[in-house]
Amino acid sequence: MEIEVTGEKLSKALASVSRVAAGARATLPILSNVLIRAESNKVSLTATNLDMAVVEYVPVVSAKDGVITVPAKLIAEFVSNLPRGEKISIKTDGMKVKVEAGNYKSTINGTAADDFPELPEIDEKAAVKYKMGIDEFKVGVSEVIVAASNDTTRPALTGVYFNTADNNLYIAATDGYRLAEREFIKKVSSEVKAIVPASSLSEVLRSISDDMDEIEMVFDESQVRFRMGEIEITSKLIDGTYPDYRSLIPSETGIEVVLNKDELLRITKMAAVFSREVNQSIICETDADKGVFAISSILNEAGENRSEIKVKVEKSGKVKLDSRYLMAALNALEEPMVRFGMEVKMAPVLIRNEKNNNYRHIVMPLNI
Amino acid sequence: MEIEVTGEKLSKALASVSRVAAGARATLPILSNVLIRAESNKVSLTATNLDMAVVEYVPVVSAKDGVITVPAKLIAEFVSNLPRGEKISIKTDGMKVKVEAGNYKSTINGTAADDFPELPEIDEKAAVKYKMGIDEFKVGVSEVIVAASNDTTRPALTGVYFNTADNNLYIAATDGYRLAEREFIKKVSSEVKAIVPASSLSEVLRSISDDMDEIEMVFDESQVRFRMGEIEITSKLIDGTYPDYRSLIPSETGIEVVLNKDELLRITKMAAVFSREVNQSIICETDADKGVFAISSILNEAGENRSEIKVKVEKSGKVKLDSRYLMAALNALEEPMVRFGMEVKMAPVLIRNEKNNNYRHIVMPLNI
Repeated sequence: MEIEVTGEKLSKALASVSRVAAGARATLPILSNVLIRAESNKVSLTATNLDMAVVEYVPVVSAKDGVITVPAKLIAEFVSNLPRGEKISIKTDGMKVKVEAGNYKSTINGTAADDFPELPEIDEKAAVKYKMGIDEFKVGVSEVIVAASNDTTRPALTGVYFNTADNNLYIAATDGYRLAEREFIKKVSSEVKAIVPASSLSEVLRSISDDMDEIEMVFDESQVRFRMGEIEITSKLIDGTYPDYRSLIPSETGIEVVLNKDELLRITKMAAVFSREVNQSIICETDADKGVFAISSILNEAGENRSEIKVKVEKSGKVKLDSRYLMAALNALEEPMVRFGMEVKMAPVLIRNEKNNNYRHIVMPLNI
Repeated sequence: MEIEVTGEKLSKALASVSRVAAGARATLPILSNVLIRAESNKVSLTATNLDMAVVEYVPVVSAKDGVITVPAKLIAEFVSNLPRGEKISIKTDGMKVKVEAGNYKSTINGTAADDFPELPEIDEKAAVKYKMGIDEFKVGVSEVIVAASNDTTRPALTGVYFNTADNNLYIAATDGYRLAEREFIKKVSSEVKAIVPASSLSEVLRSISDDMDEIEMVFDESQVRFRMGEIEITSKLIDGTYPDYRSLIPSETGIEVVLNKDELLRITKMAAVFSREVNQSIICETDADKGVFAISSILNEAGENRSEIKVKVEKSGKVKLDSRYLMAALNALEEPMVRFGMEVKMAPVLIRNEKNNNYRHIVMPLNI
């Protein structure tokens, strides 16, 4: 193999594939390598951790066919230190990989590509496909993924659930304490029910760059492939049944106030400062007589705290929440004003943008 | 006590004193508190960890005398979340401290100031004093402090040594593997030999802000006080004898090359990538015949690396260095071009700015 590429493109591609390559202490050492393949004047970089694989294409100046694997982080770091604009040549000599740019010369010990795991295949003809604008994808997934669980004892909840209903594609995530759902694509023609690992989606989000316009999602029975720009990320789906979450989302709540998001976030943080010793729990309440929405901390050893915002509200009510979940929900919302919905008695809190109803975030209350 | 202050000034002051206050799990719990004192229409905030104390004065709108202590991080975090420009009132009611700003209200449980440790006194009349520009102080200390040791088994080396020689004040630090010395103030009239803890100096560096012009250093037998803007930081000195380091600094070296600092840093990093498995050691060499300075990694499992820079050099030589020490030295230098001095045989490497000779950084070689 002998290729010549522009340093910046190679550096960017190596940075993103080396994130997927396993660490050097992986049980299967070759998983920490990147596979470099030159074929028909195209060069691809591939890395996998067995749950997920990424392939990125790099434009070449010239290429002679061949294939080799080298430690991903080593070559990524070496190339990232080269001066910008430098052309890089990569040449194999047996298992030795010579990487050169001007007066900078390295020889990296490679491993034969035969030992590299086979990449998962998707039968693209039989698969379900969706396309959407990359910005919309990024916003939507970011809004939902915050509610996914880290608890691997319930694998389904560590994923984001892609599902169709009434001809729309929705994405949803829940960790049992909160739930976020977003209308993702309207009027789709094919159906899907698939749980995509949140970790794979995070990697897709990280790989999005400004020069991309569109993303394609390709689902088969057990895998999903995301294709955007020169990158393809393929991930296993999570095997399991996703909870029937839709019935948990109230369409309306008995009390609703419209609040400035930054102000709400600010008073939540202030109450949270005083709630360290009481599991971060805070009280949100409306007072119809005074016309205020208030957040207060629960009196404890440190002291207490209360902040009020003037609002239009017709009923009084009170709910106890985990301040971290409320902050995460607020940070996920797009609009500057938010709808905070609650009931007079204990019930889930519904948080939405003031205008667009395409995103719903529910936080379960704590016992008062 | 009853004070009214502007939120931003208070927030900035609380942030810096709360860094010095010990964590909430301190053996002496009151050390995690900040002492707030109102006296003669001046308000001061004080925190100490027994090795170091910081006092910061905050301009007030109005004040009634009094004194109290409250958890430093709690009040700092609460105040930092208040909207900018808000006036803050702090009022005591027994041991309860009411902190209010508009619709934001908190009550913090305080502790009587009687339990707060006495602050160290310095007899300013008998003390040795120096004054200098704050920018010069910042640059000088930053250049030297990188060479201080973290190893508490040799306490003297965890400090920066302030010492006078030939009527100049020098600062120096060494961890036994490298040594940095800076001419700090020329033509001083009083002498000093004092080891200031690097941790205290780091705190002084962090407390420097753009609105400060000058810094005063006040030394007595066992303490030093740094006074800048509205802040005073007092630190214990390290008890012990500092090694007679000056004889270790060569005034000239047999081989000297002038190199672009960024380029030298770049090739050092590239060689370091390949040196992970060999204790970060790299080879620096000059080749008089070819007219190059080169850095290479030592051949190991990962591969090998060599980068060259064209230079004017009359003698060939070779030295093995710890790449981390070389990078730290280069990052400490101010000028874009540096002098890299070495010998034909194993000897310390001397790294200086190309023009100004007021800073000398020595790195000990590794055995080849």
